[in-house]
Amino acid sequence: MSVSDNATRRDLKALFEPESVAVVGASDDPVKWGNWLARGALRGASRRPVYLINRRGGEVMGLPAHRSLADLPEAPELAVLAVPPAALEQAADDAIESGCRAMVVITAGEADGDAGGERDAGLAARAREAGVILLGPNCLGVFDAAAELELVPNDLPRGPIGLLSQSGNLALEIGLLAEAAGLGFSRFVSLGNQADVEVAELIGELAGHDPTELIAIYVEDFRDGRAFARAAEAATRAGKPVVLLAVEHSEATARAVRSHTGALASDSAAIDAACRAAGMERVHGPQELVDLAQGLLRSGRLRGRRVAVLADGGGHGGIAAALASAAGLELPALSTQLTAALRAGLPRTAAVANPIDLAGGGEADIHSFDRTARAVLGSGEVDALLMTGYFGGYTDYAETLGRGEASVAEALAHAAAVSGRPLLVQTMHPQAAAARALRRRGVPVYRTIERAVHVLGRLATGTGGSARGVPSLPAPAAPIAADGYMDARALLAAGGFPFAPARVVSSAAKAVAVGEELGYPVVLKALGLLHKSDAGGVITGIHDEHALRAAYADLCGRLSPPAVSVERMAPVEQGVELLVGARFDARFGPVALVGLGGVFTEVLRDVVVALAPVNEATARELLLSLRAAPLLQGARGRPAMDLDAAAMAVAALSRVAAAHPEIAELEVNPLLALPEGALGLDARVVLRAEGGP
Amino acid sequence: MSVSDNATRRDLKALFEPESVAVVGASDDPVKWGNWLARGALRGASRRPVYLINRRGGEVMGLPAHRSLADLPEAPELAVLAVPPAALEQAADDAIESGCRAMVVITAGEADGDAGGERDAGLAARAREAGVILLGPNCLGVFDAAAELELVPNDLPRGPIGLLSQSGNLALEIGLLAEAAGLGFSRFVSLGNQADVEVAELIGELAGHDPTELIAIYVEDFRDGRAFARAAEAATRAGKPVVLLAVEHSEATARAVRSHTGALASDSAAIDAACRAAGMERVHGPQELVDLAQGLLRSGRLRGRRVAVLADGGGHGGIAAALASAAGLELPALSTQLTAALRAGLPRTAAVANPIDLAGGGEADIHSFDRTARAVLGSGEVDALLMTGYFGGYTDYAETLGRGEASVAEALAHAAAVSGRPLLVQTMHPQAAAARALRRRGVPVYRTIERAVHVLGRLATGTGGSARGVPSLPAPAAPIAADGYMDARALLAAGGFPFAPARVVSSAAKAVAVGEELGYPVVLKALGLLHKSDAGGVITGIHDEHALRAAYADLCGRLSPPAVSVERMAPVEQGVELLVGARFDARFGPVALVGLGGVFTEVLRDVVVALAPVNEATARELLLSLRAAPLLQGARGRPAMDLDAAAMAVAALSRVAAAHPEIAELEVNPLLALPEGALGLDARVVLRAEGGP
Repeated sequence: MSVSDNATRRDLKALFEPESVAVVGASDDPVKWGNWLARGALRGASRRPVYLINRRGGEVMGLPAHRSLADLPEAPELAVLAVPPAALEQAADDAIESGCRAMVVITAGEADGDAGGERDAGLAARAREAGVILLGPNCLGVFDAAAELELVPNDLPRGPIGLLSQSGNLALEIGLLAEAAGLGFSRFVSLGNQADVEVAELIGELAGHDPTELIAIYVEDFRDGRAFARAAEAATRAGKPVVLLAVEHSEATARAVRSHTGALASDSAAIDAACRAAGMERVHGPQELVDLAQGLLRSGRLRGRRVAVLADGGGHGGIAAALASAAGLELPALSTQLTAALRAGLPRTAAVANPIDLAGGGEADIHSFDRTARAVLGSGEVDALLMTGYFGGYTDYAETLGRGEASVAEALAHAAAVSGRPLLVQTMHPQAAAARALRRRGVPVYRTIERAVHVLGRLATGTGGSARGVPSLPAPAAPIAADGYMDARALLAAGGFPFAPARVVSSAAKAVAVGEELGYPVVLKALGLLHKSDAGGVITGIHDEHALRAAYADLCGRLSPPAVSVERMAPVEQGVELLVGARFDARFGPVALVGLGGVFTEVLRDVVVALAPVNEATARELLLSLRAAPLLQGARGRPAMDLDAAAMAVAALSRVAAAHPEIAELEVNPLLALPEGALGLDARVVLRAEGGP
Repeated sequence: MSVSDNATRRDLKALFEPESVAVVGASDDPVKWGNWLARGALRGASRRPVYLINRRGGEVMGLPAHRSLADLPEAPELAVLAVPPAALEQAADDAIESGCRAMVVITAGEADGDAGGERDAGLAARAREAGVILLGPNCLGVFDAAAELELVPNDLPRGPIGLLSQSGNLALEIGLLAEAAGLGFSRFVSLGNQADVEVAELIGELAGHDPTELIAIYVEDFRDGRAFARAAEAATRAGKPVVLLAVEHSEATARAVRSHTGALASDSAAIDAACRAAGMERVHGPQELVDLAQGLLRSGRLRGRRVAVLADGGGHGGIAAALASAAGLELPALSTQLTAALRAGLPRTAAVANPIDLAGGGEADIHSFDRTARAVLGSGEVDALLMTGYFGGYTDYAETLGRGEASVAEALAHAAAVSGRPLLVQTMHPQAAAARALRRRGVPVYRTIERAVHVLGRLATGTGGSARGVPSLPAPAAPIAADGYMDARALLAAGGFPFAPARVVSSAAKAVAVGEELGYPVVLKALGLLHKSDAGGVITGIHDEHALRAAYADLCGRLSPPAVSVERMAPVEQGVELLVGARFDARFGPVALVGLGGVFTEVLRDVVVALAPVNEATARELLLSLRAAPLLQGARGRPAMDLDAAAMAVAALSRVAAAHPEIAELEVNPLLALPEGALGLDARVVLRAEGGP
């Protein structure tokens, strides 16, 4: 179950700020979890009673150990269970019996798969019934910096990041990288099996936790993906950026896929859709996570894409500028006024175009850095400044330069703060005193040009600044059972999706009558085939009765279809063929897809996705975000297509998919966008297998 | 000028391994180049006499200083000039006069632009006449580790990389990053203005320098780009990888561009074409350069794209696998036999699919790492193994694990060496003893998953393993002067390029006669317009005389063209429209371009480039490397196009461009690839401005 609604939010104080802690399974053996957790718990002993429980009693870590929770002088508010798998159920029941308010279950189960799931569900049910919060099983602990709660096996750095992770080693990795960046954790929760407390509930908790300024998440199992996304959306709207590291690599191997939509709206694309909806920033590795977190925490987002580069060498400046262009940033030419002002303070050899190269100006006068930065940031001509090169290392050349660097760092940070525009710094000397001073004063500092520019690009163009909104799902409609072409057409048409007129016929004479009714040219389609086009089951460009009879005979002779659809032929050459579809994702529910259609669908994979349903405005936005969007807007002298009509069709399909959770894949390919209107020329529906995703 | 031909290669021993060195401008002032260079020179004093020259005489760095080169007891073999700009010309003449064999000119000129260029050319001419090698001016020195020649302002790490750099700070940056990876420089040359010694000559020199195992280059000015590429090709074919960091970001702002080819065959794309021809690996930042160098030096290239991931935690394994898939690598399922073998040595909780997750198997038995790695590498089921996670840090948990890690490192390196398949390691503890041991034994070690996987992808798919060859340019043909549509057609047709039949007419009656001759349908094109289609100057689908007369009258009425071309209409709907072009690049000469044509050209930018001329085989390879290649090969039940005919057309255009250096841009868009044959439907030529690029 998921708990992301404010109305039902639980008080998790017993988990993060308990009045007392008991470690069940505390041990002196230095390779046991019960040892590591006890050590961690005792670091908070000045804040709260810490009880060590070992069934043999005696002493643990030089302190008296209790034989059981029942022996304690009081009910511990939080119990940590680090017992052998076989002892887990009894230990959990004892803990509930003892009157604790929260349990952290380190122990992983003996049982795998279904049996493990049943065991977890049973534990969670008993805990919930008693009003006990349960974290885990199979987690490695919980950490709260302000509460000095360190129920984790390793030292963790303190700072503004709230980390929720389903991998222990990854939390250590992120901790090490964060520490190198002068960052750390406000809270860390190891998610484990999420039998009771789920990631969505914890996002909500961290959103309301003042010392947490940014929420970082590594998750493999999203549980209820929509609840997850809604919680993340609430957090981002409350001003707490959410950075998500989530992986999918098995993709199509894991799912049977029967349409282009099924293949293109991949598992990973569904995560992207959730990020776009919730305003989460998705990253793909731990270093990228920490780098982006540093940027979001220290400098925040850019107002636009215009950046200036300030280097103390042509190489660094050129490389940064090239990488910035590749990252979608703009390097505008600086105004005559600004370049004149810059030139006045720099040696003749300096370059004052963008990138700016001090060219020895730093050695000659270390304040060239802050003077230049102040002028650029204050000009309003760019949205951010990237400084790159040797800063922090001048101390090695001469002591006077070193003293200068410290005051330059202060001045740089001040200039950025006053301008309200981000300054990011790349330096070869990231641990130098000047670099540390920059970080302390809120300037992000990176070791490499590549990483600094990547973050700058994300701060300018990332999804985090503009949550599209997690759409609500409509009440399910009466499920459909038939999955033929005409069934799909009928379902979609009832939902407002526009199709070319069509009639089903089963004789040549009836076909001719329909041809007269619809008007030539017409198209014939053999029904009952999965891939009509590939099988030669579609004959287009039929201009008169004679050709219609010939085509009908040909289709029936070759394919013996149960029936044939006669359709008014659309003016394909006047339009742009799109692909419109939706897929039911096991985690995030229906996901809508829009792309370039026809023969280009699989070849160019120019597609975008969004959580369904989408409204007309979002559909329009999706269409305009395609690489092929210029074709819709009238490229190279061609007329513009009717975007409103295409967007209405996209929205209609997404609403149908959202109301029919029994549908695995729903697709119209092509949807012909025309200068006036839009017409679906095909349709396909794939139903979910019983109990399948 | 460029010197890349073996026959004319100079002996550069005096530059790298001089018998004696004189530092002109040696100084005690710790912020002067003359101080830093003298300090560096003296570090080789046990190997060779080092003479310090200061016009005031006396002592420098506690040693007697000579007043001039003329005062020395012998001619110094190498003279370093670090004098004020105004004194440069005299100092250079003095050095030549003294009988030195090589000069390193640190001094940057006073004069900018043309005057500086003339000064440089004069210096170079005088040096060459005297048989003196000249490095610089405006360089920061030269370094040869084996010869203990350290004429550079900073300490540099020693190792197998020969670095040629046109930026001093970038060389320091690369040095710091290389040192962190346990690498360093065999030689480093600061290129400066390349007045005499150019980058191509130095590539040739490093290719023959035994201690140099890999050549790294940062260059802004390629000089003769073809000579550069030929030298790099020779080096890569001799087994020395060449890694190139070169930047372009100004692009179209710097060049007037008049065709799609001009815009799409960008300055940066021309560098890519040179890399592909020469087998160079292009990188875009210093960290990427060092990371790839480590991979190439320690593990070498993969035979294929199949990789396995071995992690000690599900998070690391999943992230590495996802990044690997995104990098174009394959993660094959492992055989039943192999997974059974792996499972036998690991805990029940371990995952033995790909990615493999030891899941605590490392703590339980540290040799789980090498046992698993040996089985995977020895199986032949993958081309490389990526190990990711905590390895190197187990020492922190218990001393016994630490001792184990050292022997595991040895065993891992041995397993990789025996298998002949690369092992790459990512670890949170890159400076741990076990990690250092891995590097010493030839295993690349990276701090982050992102970087390790990126390198693995490059080692599998990079351009370095397969030089396409730098083509020779033909003798220039008689230059053309006219640049109309029919001129471009005629030039290309004479070179064997296929066009739809066309006749130029200037009356309706003549147009009708041509229509009869060619056969309907025909197309009319108004001549004399730069963008015929956009201006409405092309009328297609003319099916009879009546329509032809109407179209002719319409064209003449609207546009008053000087003449009209009547052309047989090609069956556009049966083919695939391509873009074929060439652009003259100021550095690399003619560059050929192939892409998806028609309305998709600018929208999808699906193009590839190659140094021109290309032969038919390379042209075919280019066509097949387009994203849209499946359309040529018959996607979705459509017929395959005539690749041979399309390739012949591409090769023909590239040969014409290569023979006409007066052409800035040459383009056929579209070239209609058909099931049989290929037809150019348009042509454009742009001549180079007098003296322009």
